[in-house]
Amino acid sequence: MPFPTLHPVKGVTMATGRAGFYKHDREDLLVMSFPEGASCAGVFTRNAVGSAPVDWCKRHLEATKGEGVRALVVNAGCANAFTGKPGADAVRRVASAVGKRFDCRQRDVMVASTGVIGVLLDDTKITQRLPEVEPRLTEDGWAGAARAIMTTDTFPKGAYAEAQVDGVTVRIAGICKGSGMLAPDMATMLAFVVTDAAISPTALQNLCTLYTRNTFNAVTVDGDTSTNDTLLLFATGQSGAPKISRAGDRRLADFREKLEGVLLDLAHQLVRDGEGATKFVKITVTGAETPASARKIARSIADSPLVKTAFAGEDANWGRILMAIGKADEPIDRDSIGVKFGPHWAAQDGLISPTYDEAKMSAYMKNQELEVTVDVGVGRATSSVWTCDLTKRYVEINGDYRS
Amino acid sequence: MPFPTLHPVKGVTMATGRAGFYKHDREDLLVMSFPEGASCAGVFTRNAVGSAPVDWCKRHLEATKGEGVRALVVNAGCANAFTGKPGADAVRRVASAVGKRFDCRQRDVMVASTGVIGVLLDDTKITQRLPEVEPRLTEDGWAGAARAIMTTDTFPKGAYAEAQVDGVTVRIAGICKGSGMLAPDMATMLAFVVTDAAISPTALQNLCTLYTRNTFNAVTVDGDTSTNDTLLLFATGQSGAPKISRAGDRRLADFREKLEGVLLDLAHQLVRDGEGATKFVKITVTGAETPASARKIARSIADSPLVKTAFAGEDANWGRILMAIGKADEPIDRDSIGVKFGPHWAAQDGLISPTYDEAKMSAYMKNQELEVTVDVGVGRATSSVWTCDLTKRYVEINGDYRS
Repeated sequence: MPFPTLHPVKGVTMATGRAGFYKHDREDLLVMSFPEGASCAGVFTRNAVGSAPVDWCKRHLEATKGEGVRALVVNAGCANAFTGKPGADAVRRVASAVGKRFDCRQRDVMVASTGVIGVLLDDTKITQRLPEVEPRLTEDGWAGAARAIMTTDTFPKGAYAEAQVDGVTVRIAGICKGSGMLAPDMATMLAFVVTDAAISPTALQNLCTLYTRNTFNAVTVDGDTSTNDTLLLFATGQSGAPKISRAGDRRLADFREKLEGVLLDLAHQLVRDGEGATKFVKITVTGAETPASARKIARSIADSPLVKTAFAGEDANWGRILMAIGKADEPIDRDSIGVKFGPHWAAQDGLISPTYDEAKMSAYMKNQELEVTVDVGVGRATSSVWTCDLTKRYVEINGDYRS
Repeated sequence: MPFPTLHPVKGVTMATGRAGFYKHDREDLLVMSFPEGASCAGVFTRNAVGSAPVDWCKRHLEATKGEGVRALVVNAGCANAFTGKPGADAVRRVASAVGKRFDCRQRDVMVASTGVIGVLLDDTKITQRLPEVEPRLTEDGWAGAARAIMTTDTFPKGAYAEAQVDGVTVRIAGICKGSGMLAPDMATMLAFVVTDAAISPTALQNLCTLYTRNTFNAVTVDGDTSTNDTLLLFATGQSGAPKISRAGDRRLADFREKLEGVLLDLAHQLVRDGEGATKFVKITVTGAETPASARKIARSIADSPLVKTAFAGEDANWGRILMAIGKADEPIDRDSIGVKFGPHWAAQDGLISPTYDEAKMSAYMKNQELEVTVDVGVGRATSSVWTCDLTKRYVEINGDYRS
């Protein structure tokens, strides 16, 4: 996929470099700089084996309440996960060195890592590059930034939108990486989104948490969750738009919509780059008791190896969809279930559909983008999840990865 | 694998036949007969889209309290799942016809089905075979019985043991089918175990529930759960051993051990026949807060596609094991975690092991049987789960299944 056009976001500069976590010649270091007064919010992995950089960001976002963030440092090639106190010390030394360069406190520096688990971060690889990286900071380095954070990704990922806040144009730009919800022990989904809107840290955190649910948390490649997953959202306030301190403020209506769009766009790119994926599949559950229940059922379908291999085989295997609905352990009415592939009913009212047509189904399943809609017949709540198929190539990539 | 020797169990006779659910020439019908006074207990799928035969068995075991069961009818080739009221009516007609032949009430007939989901059972295929099947009932038809219930299985599965109850020898024989925890929409794990010990239905149900936990519920191929999973346990009381009415009775000590052995043996055969499997893997979690917590962590490891593809690639990828521990959402101490492949430590005390040796690891991973032991450092509870690897062949089998 071609990298989309991302315009500069006022107050944000960035530079990349080669820290040398990879033996071959590629950039693997990204530094971003933010002006005074910027807000920051984040969502992190719920994996109990969280990495040292995740620990760092969580702790310091709490301490600063998201105020005054000045820099972000990201490296690919080493996740610095499962590295104990030495790993935490390495993160601190990186933040301290960046703080000195950028004239800020170390706690105003956010850090993210992705790569092999269990290897201690050699922080000097990063810190010795800072003198050459800093002078190169530019407003316009999105494509390079997106490339520098890639691991097993096959293309760099970015999204951009503009929104009106009280009549003033603000910009939203984001990049992310991840190939598979978790790219193996090259752990991690990382996403960084910046805006020049002026939004208080609390409001920013609320938006971040709210929109993660139906974007990054609504995509799945293999159901595995990384030790390093990180989404950071930064607002520089340099657009000239008025400062807004409540997420629900009516003046943010357009911004909210555009922000969700950018997050969803990035999340979809992760699925499209899912390891070995050949299909992009939207699973929608309707008729559930609650949105959380609809999500859990959709997720059970999207994560089932039997459902995913059927997609790979272009097989409208609705029996496996039923199995996955049933194993979700959520309220459903078995005798009202309906299952639709695109516009074609497979099952209706708890039985095979009277209009079921194998030829139409087979033709539909050859599409590269598929939609499966399931009604579970107990309520009015609905939710969608995006996933990909499970192919021999996935097994190949992940069976051969370290060897 | 060669079918083991299963001796007759007093009071149990069986016969097989060709009902014709398959187009090719194979037996797909099993009938078993039990004497008056036999006890029955069962454990069934928790899938909310349970099949008509599962509904039937659950309802009637409850009504009869497990007393007076006289017959079991099993068919392969049609799961009779997601077939609504017509499916329930078909089961009732089968039970009624068998009841007339065996001179018992229809509720004393247990029914199990396995095969394609969403296809209504043609009960006449079964009932019209009864006249020719009944005269062939024999004490000694285990191998044929195990074969008649197979679907995608590559070998028939059976296990046998003898135990002493109060100085009297009793026999335990069991057969099962399943290739994959769920063999696709050829849904199902089915297991039938009989003994000539004399055990009250309540005691039998307690034993059945207790030992399922660490046997059939401790194996996983793909984490998917069928609509038809059924384990039925029958006790004829014809051995001459005294009747026992409490599961905890000391006279059952040897029987309990042998029964668990038979169930575990059968469960292991399911994993060994896992679709596309090339490795048989035991995952043991120690140092957990509770056995349930240990089980959940072991299961999270055993079901992770990234862990399973690593086994397929003979890769001692302990980073993925850590990821799977962390995502289980159970109490662990990250900085005390230990991970061992066979006798070789990969991680100790929350860090890569000082004795880690890639060459030894690689050599170990070439074994066909693997053991992974994980200590999570918060308690003393332990649990084991058995699984297999995730191979390209699994994707092939399940991607090409219906087409």
